Order: sequence, then C-alpha cells, then structure tokens
Amino acid sequence: MSRGRLEAFSDGVLAVVITLLALDLHTRAEGPESLASQLREQWPSFAAFALSFFVVGVIWVNHHALFALVNRVDRTVMFLNLLLLMWVTTIPFSTSALAGFLRAGGADTHLAVALYGISNEGMAISFTLILRHLLRRRLLLRPLDDGAARTALRRFGVGTVLYPAITAVGLVSPFLMLLLYALQNGFYVFEQTPATTSTSDR
Amino acid sequence: MSRGRLEAFSDGVLAVVITLLALDLHTRAEGPESLASQLREQWPSFAAFALSFFVVGVIWVNHHALFALVNRVDRTVMFLNLLLLMWVTTIPFSTSALAGFLRAGGADTHLAVALYGISNEGMAISFTLILRHLLRRRLLLRPLDDGAARTALRRFGVGTVLYPAITAVGLVSPFLMLLLYALQNGFYVFEQTPATTSTSDR
Amino acid sequence: MSRGRLEAFSDGVLAVVITLLALDLHTRAEGPESLASQLREQWPSFAAFALSFFVVGVIWVNHHALFALVNRVDRTVMFLNLLLLMWVTTIPFSTSALAGFLRAGGADTHLAVALYGISNEGMAISFTLILRHLLRRRLLLRPLDDGAARTALRRFGVGTVLYPAITAVGLVSPFLMLLLYALQNGFYVFEQTPATTSTSDR
Amino acid sequence: MSRGRLEAFSDGVLAVVITLLALDLHTRAEGPESLASQLREQWPSFAAFALSFFVVGVIWVNHHALFALVNRVDRTVMFLNLLLLMWVTTIPFSTSALAGFLRAGGADTHLAVALYGISNEGMAISFTLILRHLLRRRLLLRPLDDGAARTALRRFGVGTVLYPAITAVGLVSPFLMLLLYALQNGFYVFEQTPATTSTSDR
Repeated sequence: MSRGRLEAFSDGVLAVVITLLALDLHTRAEGPESLASQLREQWPSFAAFALSFFVVGVIWVNHHALFALVNRVDRTVMFLNLLLLMWVTTIPFSTSALAGFLRAGGADTHLAVALYGISNEGMAISFTLILRHLLRRRLLLRPLDDGAARTALRRFGVGTVLYPAITAVGLVSPFLMLLLYALQNGFYVFEQTPATTSTSDR
Repeated sequence: MSRGRLEAFSDGVLAVVITLLALDLHTRAEGPESLASQLREQWPSFAAFALSFFVVGVIWVNHHALFALVNRVDRTVMFLNLLLLMWVTTIPFSTSALAGFLRAGGADTHLAVALYGISNEGMAISFTLILRHLLRRRLLLRPLDDGAARTALRRFGVGTVLYPAITAVGLVSPFLMLLLYALQNGFYVFEQTPATTSTSDR
Repeated sequence: MSRGRLEAFSDGVLAVVITLLALDLHTRAEGPESLASQLREQWPSFAAFALSFFVVGVIWVNHHALFALVNRVDRTVMFLNLLLLMWVTTIPFSTSALAGFLRAGGADTHLAVALYGISNEGMAISFTLILRHLLRRRLLLRPLDDGAARTALRRFGVGTVLYPAITAVGLVSPFLMLLLYALQNGFYVFEQTPATTSTSDR
Repeated sequence: MSRGRLEAFSDGVLAVVITLLALDLHTRAEGPESLASQLREQWPSFAAFALSFFVVGVIWVNHHALFALVNRVDRTVMFLNLLLLMWVTTIPFSTSALAGFLRAGGADTHLAVALYGISNEGMAISFTLILRHLLRRRLLLRPLDDGAARTALRRFGVGTVLYPAITAVGLVSPFLMLLLYALQNGFYVFEQTPATTSTSDR
C-alpha cells in the first residue's frame, strides 16, 4: 500500500485536533466579569493551548520526517498509526481538563496532570511501536543495520520514559511541569528524529 | 473521473468525524463532583469513544484498501460514497447517544443501542453497494471473474447481517454488544477486505 | 497557479462543513423526556441534516466535475472560490435555524426558510460566477466556442432562478420546500454539470 | 523535505479554521425573542464572520502563492509555519470576542479590538519570518538577488506595521476598524504577494 493516504489522513486528523485546541478559549461578553479579568483568570487555558499546539505540532513534524523515510506501509502500520492518532485526538480533552483544574486548583489538579501525562505517554508509545515495526519489517527506503536500528529505537524511546518523569514532577508542581514539557518539545525544534539522523549518517 | 479527489474528500470527512468523537469527552472543573468520580461515571463515554474510533478507523483502512484497486470512478460511485460518508457522520451522534443512555440506564438504552446499530448498518450497506457497483461496472484495475466477484460480495456482505445480530444482542446486554463490536472490528485488523484478497489471489 | 491546492482546500472546507451538519443532532440522556419522543420531536433536524448533506454533496460533485476541466486557475478564480466556500460554510447555520424554527413553528419559520434560501442562492450565484470567469478567460482545458459557452452558462444559471422560486414555495409550505430541494438536488445525481456535458459533446 | 505535506497540513488547518468561524452564528428557536430581532442584534457576528473569512482566505491565497515559489523546506520553515498556523487558529476566538463585545458595547470593546489586532499581527509577523527565512536560506525555486529580496521583505512587512495602526483606529471607532481591515484585505485581491511579483518581474 502506498503511504500517500496514510499521510493525508494523518494530516487531516492532526489539522483538526490542532485547530480544536483553540475551541477551549472563549470569553463571555454578557455578565458582570470584565474581559481583562476573564483573560487573567483563564491564563491556564492560554498556556495549555500554546503548549498543546506545540506538542501536536512536534508530533506532525516527526510524523512527516519519519514517513518521508518509509518505502511502503502494511496493514499493521496503518493500525499502529490509528492508535497514535487515537491518543492525539484525546489531547484537546486532556488539555481542557488540565487547564480547568489548574484554574480551579485543589487536589484534583493531580489527576488532571496525570490525564495529560497519559495522553502524551500514549502518543510516545504508539510512535515507538510504529518505528519498531518499520525497522523490523524493513519498510524504510534505506534499511538500517541492526546497530543503527537499536540506537534509533533507544534514542526515540527516551520520550516514553520522559513523560512519566515529567508527570511525576507535575504532581508536585504543575507549573514546573508545563515548563518541562515546553523544554522537552523545544528540543525537537533543533533535534532531528533519531531515524532521520541515523539514516542520513550513513 | 480520477479517484484522487474522492479519496481526499473521504479522508477529510473521516478525519473530522474520528476527531469529533473526542468532543464527547469533557470534565467540569467547577462543581462539587471530584474529577475521579466524573471519570468513573463517564466510563461509557470513554468506552464508546475508543470503540467508535476503532469502527471509523476500520472504515478508513477498508476504504483505502478498496479504492487502491479502483481504476476510475463514475458519478454513481461518487454518490454512493457520499451515502457512505453520510452514515459515517452520524457516528458521533449515535456514539454520544449510546454513551449517554448507557450512563443513565433505563429502558431508553434499547433505543440508543438500536440507533448505534442503524449507523453501523447504514455504513455496511453503503460499502456493499459501492463494492457491487465497482464489480458490475468493471471499474477495478484488475476485474474479477464472476465467481470471484460473487465470493467477494458474499464475504463482504457478512457485515450487513452481522450488525443487526450484534444489535439484537445489545437489546439484551449492551455490554456484551460493545465486546462483540470490538471483536468484529478486531477481525478486520488481521483480515484483508475480501476484494483485496480475491484480487491478490489471482 | 496550479489547481491542486484550490481543490485540496475546497475539499477540506466541504469535508468539515458536511461533517459539522451532524453536530446539530443530539439527545439528552438526563431529563424527563424519553429518547423516542426526543427523536420524534427532532424530525426536522434529521430531515434538514439529510437534505443539507445532499446539498453540500452535490456542490462537491459539481466542484469536482467543473475543476477537472480546468487547465489553470488565476487569482480571481481563487477569490470567487472563496466566495463560494463562504456561502457553503453558512449552510450548517441556516440548516440549524431552519430545523429549529420548523420544530418550533410560528411566524418566524418564514424568515428561517428565507435564510436557508439565501445560503443556497449565494452558492448558486458564486458557482455561476466561477463558471463565467473560467469560460471568459478560457481557463478550461478544452475551451468552448461562444455558443456552447452561452448554453452552459444558461443551463447552469437555472439554479440561481430556481432557489428563489423554491424559497417562495417554502413561505407557503416549508414541507413542500424540503421536497422540492430534494428533487432539485436529486436531478444532479443523474444529470451532469452543463460544462461537463458540453465539453464531452464536442 | 518536500513541501507537499506542509501545504496539505496548512490547507487542513486553514480549512478547519475558516469553517469554524461560522460556528459563532446561531439562533434560538425557543424563547421570546423573534428571529428578526436576533439577526439584527447579532449583526456584529455576521460582519465579523465575513471579515475573518476574508482575512483567513487572504492568508490562504498568499500562503499558496508564496509556497508555489518554494523549492524545498527545512525544519525551521516547518516550525515557523506552525507558528503562523497557531496565530491563525486564534482567529475564531478573537473574532468571537470582538463580535461579542461589539454587541455588548462598553469599555471592554477596546480590549476585544486589541485581541483581534494581536491575532492579525501575530499572523503578519509569522508570515514575514517565513519569507525572510526562505530568502536568507535561498529556498526559493528562483532565488532573488539582494535588492529584490530587500524590496520583497519591505513590501511584505507593511502588514506588520499596518495592523497596529488599524488596531489604534479601532480603539477610537471599532466600525471604522472593520472597514479598514476590509480595505486592507481587499487590496490583496488585486495585488500579488511581493515575492510573486518580484520573481515574475525578473
């Protein structure tokens, strides 16, 4: 099967998800509260919107970079990709929950932090499963040797360990967590995906 | 007419539908109810989200697999495809109704189960109509002979009989129904669409 | 400019619009009203959803058929196409208004019928403007001679006269109007767009 | 990296955003207020919808025109493009806020006007950053010489100065501001993007 429709469908889902994030931003023109105080009170929504936009954007860039190296896809890749997209579509939900409970404060913030961590961890694991399958079935345009494949997977799997760690920090300080997420995703702006680097190293 | 735009439009609709499913998930940060109890209470929404994501995902994979075999499309295929997409766009509605009435319990659960069955049956019938038309008008890249065409249609039509049966089970036990839907769609993860298999068997 | 991105963007808008139509369908699991009576009461929403899905679907098929004949697009075509898409994006709004006031009954139904007519008339006029510009600037793959161009425009412009007429009927009987819309769009299932026919007649 | 998926993803986001604008239009069939008075009262929503549709449409046309000149994209272009899209996805939010506070009147209208200006300014700056990077890294199909590049950037950067000026006018008269936005975007209907003109001038 060609990878064209897999990319087109993924682009569609990612585009809708990244746009829906902004639906959580809204103000009420009626009512006693001034717009300025509404904006101040909703700062967690704006911070969470910007962070999750960035998170989904990085997923898209990495998805693009990875599948640019793919020769052909099989049925398993399609379903693993659906698994990845399922976790991606939960991001607006967990972002909204995180922002809501950051705003409200209280003990439930912990669970909201955990929900956000689960969405991110689900994406990281799905992405690693896709990479592992592509490497094992030698579906890349230029197959990696065993050592390079192991290195690529190890470097890529870092995310799956990182998200639980960031979530653990978030249980203590949600604000530090937002910062760590931003830093971790900021890393991807300057760093290629492992697979890309490894392949182009050859 | 080329099949490119039919695929692009279908990918768009399927991508929006599959993403909108997650809009039914939401929590309230304000109010007396804890987040944990909200999540517990909403388990039917999460289960229905995962199931319907899977259902629409399977539709997408099968749509991809079927149209990869198509040489050209005519006006009838375009309208039959619109009929399929119409039923697909009702999935978020019937998923939300199913989840809501599973949560609320009571006699209306039966009707919600039936609504969900109607959406699925509508998709199965539309898909079969598309396949039948493609076979009859010999629009496939490699036309099947009459015997293979009949086998493909018969194997494919199984879904149109299966959904009413699963719905009947759901009238007795909605939970068993969710399991049967999951199993039936899980089958497609490992099984090719009939048309694909038949063609590649030649 | 290539017509590829114009088609991709239009497909995207049409796919989102056609999917959003279903957002107007919803039921409440909580509350005293039974699901059956909710569905009965909401029949105008279901009828309006099916009709508007069909209306947007026909727009998509005709858009596809028209642009398949186009050689290249200029800046004017892009903005006329945006005008068409603007009217298309008002369809969920005017559909929802129509369904709401059909349900509520009363004198306001007349205005809701007019709103729905305006959305449809806006689309018909935009479509005719696109066709006229394509013909005048000879942007089609196989330019029509003056006679054929005039015929194509006249046959196509019928819609711009038809919608006000159907709307006028709707002011007397909204139900007859729904039927006339369905018939008028049903006509396109069997009838090619004028431009297609004229070109292939040559 | 190829520019294909960048264009497809951008088209997806722009298509969803431009369609979501219409979600701010709605009427209530129940309640004492007549449809006519609802429509009258909501005129800022209709005006803001039409204006923002136009604004996003112009972004799409310019995005199309600019990337049609691009040979290849690097990781920086992808992230700058994400920055542009982030500002684009805030348009439905700031449009809705603008319309709401225009309707309600009062001192908060100033802040809503500023929010709308920020969304537009964010887009203009992001677009200019993309153009600057494309010129500096010579990623265009036909690189401009230094003089032409400077001219293109200067002409393009006009928008980044114009939006604050229009916003300043809006603090005095929001209605004059709507008119100025319309005029400024109307300019793009007849005027090519600087880069396009410069290149085709050669």
